Amino acid sequence: MRHLLDVCDLSVEELYKLIYTAEDIAAHGDKYAHALSGKKLATLFFEPSTRTRLSFEAAMLELGGSVLGFSEASSSSAAKGECVSDTVRVVSNYADIIAMRHPIEGAALAAAEKSGVPIINAGDGGHCHPTQTLADLLTIHRELGRLDNLKIGLCGDLLYGRTVHSLINAMLRYKGISYVLISPEELKLPAYTKRALTEAGADYIETTSLEDSVASLDVLYMTRVQRERFPSVEAYKRVKDCYVLTCDIMQRAKATMRVLHPLPRVNEIAKDVDDDPRAAYFRQTLNGKLMRMALLLTLTSDEYLSAPATLPTGERTDKVCHNSKCITNNENGFVRKSTVSADGVEKCLYCEHALQ
Amino acid sequence: MRHLLDVCDLSVEELYKLIYTAEDIAAHGDKYAHALSGKKLATLFFEPSTRTRLSFEAAMLELGGSVLGFSEASSSSAAKGECVSDTVRVVSNYADIIAMRHPIEGAALAAAEKSGVPIINAGDGGHCHPTQTLADLLTIHRELGRLDNLKIGLCGDLLYGRTVHSLINAMLRYKGISYVLISPEELKLPAYTKRALTEAGADYIETTSLEDSVASLDVLYMTRVQRERFPSVEAYKRVKDCYVLTCDIMQRAKATMRVLHPLPRVNEIAKDVDDDPRAAYFRQTLNGKLMRMALLLTLTSDEYLSAPATLPTGERTDKVCHNSKCITNNENGFVRKSTVSADGVEKCLYCEHALQ
Amino acid sequence: MRHLLDVCDLSVEELYKLIYTAEDIAAHGDKYAHALSGKKLATLFFEPSTRTRLSFEAAMLELGGSVLGFSEASSSSAAKGECVSDTVRVVSNYADIIAMRHPIEGAALAAAEKSGVPIINAGDGGHCHPTQTLADLLTIHRELGRLDNLKIGLCGDLLYGRTVHSLINAMLRYKGISYVLISPEELKLPAYTKRALTEAGADYIETTSLEDSVASLDVLYMTRVQRERFPSVEAYKRVKDCYVLTCDIMQRAKATMRVLHPLPRVNEIAKDVDDDPRAAYFRQTLNGKLMRMALLLTLTSDEYLSAPATLPTGERTDKVCHNSKCITNNENGFVRKSTVSADGVEKCLYCEHALQ
Repeated sequence: MRHLLDVCDLSVEELYKLIYTAEDIAAHGDKYAHALSGKKLATLFFEPSTRTRLSFEAAMLELGGSVLGFSEASSSSAAKGECVSDTVRVVSNYADIIAMRHPIEGAALAAAEKSGVPIINAGDGGHCHPTQTLADLLTIHRELGRLDNLKIGLCGDLLYGRTVHSLINAMLRYKGISYVLISPEELKLPAYTKRALTEAGADYIETTSLEDSVASLDVLYMTRVQRERFPSVEAYKRVKDCYVLTCDIMQRAKATMRVLHPLPRVNEIAKDVDDDPRAAYFRQTLNGKLMRMALLLTLTSDEYLSAPATLPTGERTDKVCHNSKCITNNENGFVRKSTVSADGVEKCLYCEHALQ
Repeated sequence: MRHLLDVCDLSVEELYKLIYTAEDIAAHGDKYAHALSGKKLATLFFEPSTRTRLSFEAAMLELGGSVLGFSEASSSSAAKGECVSDTVRVVSNYADIIAMRHPIEGAALAAAEKSGVPIINAGDGGHCHPTQTLADLLTIHRELGRLDNLKIGLCGDLLYGRTVHSLINAMLRYKGISYVLISPEELKLPAYTKRALTEAGADYIETTSLEDSVASLDVLYMTRVQRERFPSVEAYKRVKDCYVLTCDIMQRAKATMRVLHPLPRVNEIAKDVDDDPRAAYFRQTLNGKLMRMALLLTLTSDEYLSAPATLPTGERTDKVCHNSKCITNNENGFVRKSTVSADGVEKCLYCEHALQ
Repeated sequence: MRHLLDVCDLSVEELYKLIYTAEDIAAHGDKYAHALSGKKLATLFFEPSTRTRLSFEAAMLELGGSVLGFSEASSSSAAKGECVSDTVRVVSNYADIIAMRHPIEGAALAAAEKSGVPIINAGDGGHCHPTQTLADLLTIHRELGRLDNLKIGLCGDLLYGRTVHSLINAMLRYKGISYVLISPEELKLPAYTKRALTEAGADYIETTSLEDSVASLDVLYMTRVQRERFPSVEAYKRVKDCYVLTCDIMQRAKATMRVLHPLPRVNEIAKDVDDDPRAAYFRQTLNGKLMRMALLLTLTSDEYLSAPATLPTGERTDKVCHNSKCITNNENGFVRKSTVSADGVEKCLYCEHALQ
């Protein structure tokens, strides 16, 4: 049985297959209208995320399946102190596949280790959110016809922006990608991510100006500066409106350039940009549904159900993870495990933070 | 594409068509059991309203369709500062039709202006709640066989009662309607509504006594005095139990008279009245479901999807709407628009409050 | 029309029929995949209980039916002061059967008295929770092949534990049952329950030691010590971790013994016990879904819909029930009724507390 916890759980080939399936669904939806009839998706949202939840529910319903679940932890057994692995073992008796959103990092892996059905990580804290990245990749592929040889501008919060790190991570596997990293000083891309770019042979430049860099881009990926990620309200206010994409700026961009945004947006894209055909962010939400449909089909197929799990494994460790948001620090009696990354650092198996 | 924001968006003919469709569904439900199979309704409830939400969901399910959505804003992207028009543009990718409830006046119009699918206004603050009025009209038609030549008693909160204003507004289009307005001094029908009655040639009398006026009525429309609408708890307490319909009072009424109530009721109708065949308020909730079924069928029909939108339009204005609950004052960067009513008053396009 | 408010609403024969139906569903699920298509279940959860709600929803979906409802009172009309009997009269127009969870004791009976469709009590405060007991009974039957001649250990909170009292109550009707009551002094089984055991000819012993008593058991029913049931946090802390079932203790038990637990568990069962084939508590949740499927099928069958209701009836009384959590003390204008039990005590019809 296969799960999806991180985009890179999928090989490049598997990812292309998903994309082609999603594009076939877009072209011939009726063919799939009963593909999962009789099957049930459980949407276990331990924190609210309407857009993601509705996208999963729409995806399942369009495949002829049905949906059950919850949209907030307040109405879940977690409130009674149940651990996430017990919850999924129980729900494995109620559903054929589970999409899980959880505020704690590593919760999806902890769940998948015990689940009787495939787990899709619909976001585990600041750690991973692979189905958002699948939406981004399908959007680039449908809008520009390729996933390689692209100049991608990443704009806004490159420090805390989970979607940005996840997109970069996924794009490392494609040839001829270069980046323009547009952010204020306080929100620059972390050093270790830049190192990853260099190691993968992707070149990048850093800048603080959106105006000056937009002209050369194939893709402009805008992000929302998220209040919740900041240490203080002041720190947030200083940078919140540092970038606003306007029609004036759009005039400097190529006719083939595309604007992506994970949404919701607040002020970072002026509303009149919505009417520009290069604004792809609403189509991006449609693509998110299509990729989730492809994913639900794939993970519930006999081939994937009978395939060996590809979950990351590690060794028991006595070292304590110092990430307070890690699942190992949020459930009692948790068995701590670690793994050693390519560059020799011992990391927590669940949240991937380095262990001292 | 057509939307339903206000009952009067429907012509008298269209309204009769809806009523006949609802009555046909009541008689031959099986005929409609798969009418919308494969279609999805999104119930976007930015504030809770169980009865209305469940009625919409039951309606869609009985037509063979399916449902997704949320029942509180806390679990919606609005919490992240997304504007309602972005939300519906996204949800337009997930559903074929949207029923939206929102605490802010004009939110339904703001949504419909950008939506890719039909919007049904399931209540926008104190502004409109057309599907409740559709339930009232079908109930009168099914119980009394006509929508004209009726003596209608409106009892309770005629000042703040949204359902009362909406029912009067809808009935203005029918002949031979007269009103008995039964309320305490503090809760009398607003002057502008009385003016509308006069202009439409409907006569009315005002009274404070239910006992003395019940004998002549064809319809008695009871309302709940709603705590939330009052400036102070004292003001509320003074009038909350001013009218209680009892079996004694019912003895004075005609055998053909019918009692309606939008529900939920608190104390304004004694429970033993429930067993009186003239008590139509529980059947009224069934009629609400039937009209919502008719409405879902109609708005998703090719004829209505291909029809031009009939949304109210207006001119950009720099005047600020002084209604603090208006959408124009609750979303940033909102384009203010106004329209001039028949009597020459410039009104906010969204909440219809007069602009100074 | 029949309802299920208490396990003992079902005769021993009816209960066996449910069990055989559930076992047939387990063996031939496909046969039932469309059994309730076109039917609707309303899950009215006035307090959250995810596991129970999801189990009901999964049950209905696997029978081809659909589901609507709410998971918290905050999003229900109760917030507006509506009484539960009005709510179910309205929902009777939206659904074919109702599963209701309510924090107030006797709410399920108050609802059933007015409902137009069958009511399943999914828990009314500390009073009854029959579908949990149905899950327990099916689990014993599937795991051990019988419901009689069993030695049952009940461990943990035997004072407040609703599931324990309900299981004992149901087992009183079977022959050759003996009990080992394992609890700390503070949480011993109430005297009246012990009296019931004696009257039914079931023998029992009381002990504080799990280790010493596990060897002879056929069934070990573990319970969670629930914070919410205790007068003070201290009282709770004193006993919360008094029993922890470990692999060491399991070594003393019979190869045929089975461990049950209503779940969620906190610390009372060590996680490594999960891998022991005698650990039946996750299978128990599957059995809960199967019994709910059997129950939905049965209560919506023509035979049961046309059968006379078997609701407990009583006489009007002026005596006030002194249980502050009783429905008679939580809804205004409630008609109080009482009934006289076998031992001559006058009890509240709704919460079954003795009236002074």
